[in-house]
Amino acid sequence: MKPLNRRSFLRFARCAALVSILGRSTGRAQTARSSAKVVADAGDVTRRLARYLVTARAEEIPPAVKHQATRTLLNFIGVAVGGSNHESVDRAVAAIGPFAGPPQAAVLGRGERMDVASATLINGISSHVLNFDDTHLATIIHASSAIVPPALALAEFLPSTKGSDFLHALVMGMETAFRVGSAVMPDHFDAGWHITGTAGAIGAAAASGRLLGLTERQMGWAIGLAASQPVGLRESFGSMNKSFNPGRAAQNGLLAALLAARDFTSSDQMLEANAGWARTLSTKQNFRAITDDLGMRFEAALNTYLPFACAIIIHPAIDGCIRIRQQHRIAIEEIAAVELRVHPRVLQLAAKKTPSSGLEGKFSVYHAAAVALVDGKAGPRQFSDSAVRAGPTIALRELVSVTSDTSLKETQARVALMTRQGRRVDVFVEHVVGSLENPLTDQALEGKTRDLLAGFLPADRIDKLIEACWKVEHAPAAGTLARLASTG
Amino acid sequence: MKPLNRRSFLRFARCAALVSILGRSTGRAQTARSSAKVVADAGDVTRRLARYLVTARAEEIPPAVKHQATRTLLNFIGVAVGGSNHESVDRAVAAIGPFAGPPQAAVLGRGERMDVASATLINGISSHVLNFDDTHLATIIHASSAIVPPALALAEFLPSTKGSDFLHALVMGMETAFRVGSAVMPDHFDAGWHITGTAGAIGAAAASGRLLGLTERQMGWAIGLAASQPVGLRESFGSMNKSFNPGRAAQNGLLAALLAARDFTSSDQMLEANAGWARTLSTKQNFRAITDDLGMRFEAALNTYLPFACAIIIHPAIDGCIRIRQQHRIAIEEIAAVELRVHPRVLQLAAKKTPSSGLEGKFSVYHAAAVALVDGKAGPRQFSDSAVRAGPTIALRELVSVTSDTSLKETQARVALMTRQGRRVDVFVEHVVGSLENPLTDQALEGKTRDLLAGFLPADRIDKLIEACWKVEHAPAAGTLARLASTG
Repeated sequence: MKPLNRRSFLRFARCAALVSILGRSTGRAQTARSSAKVVADAGDVTRRLARYLVTARAEEIPPAVKHQATRTLLNFIGVAVGGSNHESVDRAVAAIGPFAGPPQAAVLGRGERMDVASATLINGISSHVLNFDDTHLATIIHASSAIVPPALALAEFLPSTKGSDFLHALVMGMETAFRVGSAVMPDHFDAGWHITGTAGAIGAAAASGRLLGLTERQMGWAIGLAASQPVGLRESFGSMNKSFNPGRAAQNGLLAALLAARDFTSSDQMLEANAGWARTLSTKQNFRAITDDLGMRFEAALNTYLPFACAIIIHPAIDGCIRIRQQHRIAIEEIAAVELRVHPRVLQLAAKKTPSSGLEGKFSVYHAAAVALVDGKAGPRQFSDSAVRAGPTIALRELVSVTSDTSLKETQARVALMTRQGRRVDVFVEHVVGSLENPLTDQALEGKTRDLLAGFLPADRIDKLIEACWKVEHAPAAGTLARLASTG
Repeated sequence: MKPLNRRSFLRFARCAALVSILGRSTGRAQTARSSAKVVADAGDVTRRLARYLVTARAEEIPPAVKHQATRTLLNFIGVAVGGSNHESVDRAVAAIGPFAGPPQAAVLGRGERMDVASATLINGISSHVLNFDDTHLATIIHASSAIVPPALALAEFLPSTKGSDFLHALVMGMETAFRVGSAVMPDHFDAGWHITGTAGAIGAAAASGRLLGLTERQMGWAIGLAASQPVGLRESFGSMNKSFNPGRAAQNGLLAALLAARDFTSSDQMLEANAGWARTLSTKQNFRAITDDLGMRFEAALNTYLPFACAIIIHPAIDGCIRIRQQHRIAIEEIAAVELRVHPRVLQLAAKKTPSSGLEGKFSVYHAAAVALVDGKAGPRQFSDSAVRAGPTIALRELVSVTSDTSLKETQARVALMTRQGRRVDVFVEHVVGSLENPLTDQALEGKTRDLLAGFLPADRIDKLIEACWKVEHAPAAGTLARLASTG
């Protein structure tokens, strides 16, 4: 898959932000996203977060939160293995290979083994390169690509790491990234930062620090050292640099925790200080988003997963096409017309009628509707270069008409099919799949993951790996997951 | 040496900025430092810089610029070896050691050998930990700690690297760091960034990219990838995190160049784009500071070197004490009174009368004057914990009186000594040593370096190493320098 171009991706990201605004119903989200300058409770932010991170017990985390972290892990494994043979990854492996250390950790989807830090970088790149990862809608953070790689590599390096500790570290890392991100969004993103690589580094430090057993003071330093190493400007979107950002953020958080474990010191107030993270990297700081209700309210529970490998603005139309296909089972050759009614922004952002590449297909509501009707899915294979050139898809997309409808939300669509016999069927998508109101089911997430793993790992290995992900909390050694997900 | 506390270092850094304003006579400096928002010639900045970096020939660099880069190298070797046994360095080595790769490059001042990237990190930390490095006054960038480590490690890794190529890479790296820094100062620093770790990463990429023989397009990507990884917030000042910043910046620039060499892509406009480096990390952008007169005007020629290991605001008083000591050779026990007339800011920032630690001594004009008269120098040993507790120094500092004099500039001082016999001698420091008007002589720089190396390397090795630095341009293999500067 070729990387998206910069402008397209900016649009994509902004849509995700809009969906998040439209899709959220809690007052907290509105507070966190207010663009007014909010400085609340600046005292002791870093210390309070650090204290929580080292004292929180896995047994106190609600099952729903742990389950969400498990889903995040499963999705991560799929996108990391699915992206592992992208040319970005090949080039990064070639670049760092001569300098890498002992073979301590698996490179997912591949045969190499590298030192913990190098494997972390590569797995972070792999998992973001398909742009198909998890999303915390309120902050647009794709947390797993920064947080899972160092935790997984450390779990291999420290073979006594139990699955429950590993999963707890993921919860701590996600919670940290989402909370520090909430404190500075949306100003931070608007300023030019790729938040997955800035907040992500801090989340990676939290997850790594938890696995390394840091003290409270050390955890504060780990946060400080990670906050000192933000990665990623939005100008990188459209080049390989974009997937590098979470990979390097993952590595930065790991390094921060490793240094802190040796008492390499930082400030105790890096998040909140005048020349610290939130004030230097954002014009808005809402410190209460970091410290309020720690251990009671979990942002980690709100993680979501992209169901389709294309611009999020066309997901409702795809969802409608797949629902109609499942409900009515009309043969493709029977279709005479496809009528889409969508939010006006769809035609602003994704109106490409005759896409000539898979990349362009990601911004074509016509191609997306056609391929969803033909295949019943819209994964990376449906947005390949060959997919947009397939005869049946091209024939069908020419039957698609799109009407803007201001009564619809961005997360909604109406889809109607007319058959050659004059029959008409339709469906209304009130809440698009993948939204907080209509999250991807476990089954659908597993299906997405299976599709991503297919071709990269043997079939029996895929079954074992998916089972191991679902049961990670009870695994005696979390590191076995990484070996299952590699070919080495 | 213990790290300075945060507040002290903020003052120190601001003094450096003020000295730079006061000390500069060119119109360019004033333009670059204007706080007004300046956006000039935003087109093609990254490409033009990249093109210069890959086409500039060593033979075209003026001898004075090469000589300044040679002085920067010498100063770097001194501070890196002198800082190599600091506990920050011990802890960093312990933290990354288990993950390091093959023994490709020397860790300066120590016995370990590590992979190129790991050695780069450690040498960057070592060289900044004494806060005694080179300074580009207009930007307060301490370039060598970010730029020399990757170039030196690559010179070992690529044994065909000639001294002339190595020195040229340093010139390219310094020029890049100073120019991109000039484009965003002072707003960038005021916002909270530790500019040595932000502009430094880009300089490190330029130097590394030159040694790796990047094409113009690759060099642009190396700049983009390095710009994506700024390191360091001013809140780190006073903790080990501060010296980590240039170390990690050095490593980031190296990684950026290694990736670009494998065609790992970035934006071609990362410096100037809307969501790029200068606009995201600063409210001011003066892009002409990057591209104007490339190859004709050299910021690298304006690098300076701290002569004394303490707050820069008291350097003129120290300079005066050393001059009087040299000119009049009055025995310490003959001194009845020491009268200093200094800029008013000295008593605001460095008025500690009875320092109880070496760290406090760095902010005591009384201790500094006394120890300068006793030892004739003011290096790290003169600001150790034992130095501030030495009897003769304590006795002498009680004879020091300090008067603010608004007629003096910050870079000036008047020093007068009264002897017990009633004799009075005085000196006026018009331009403090280390300033652009009165740069450290080669001899003084060599003396500073010798002092720093003493005790870390055998005496005959020190002679060879210093000679190798001075003659680096003619060395058949630059990597030999690194081996001379290590004990391995």
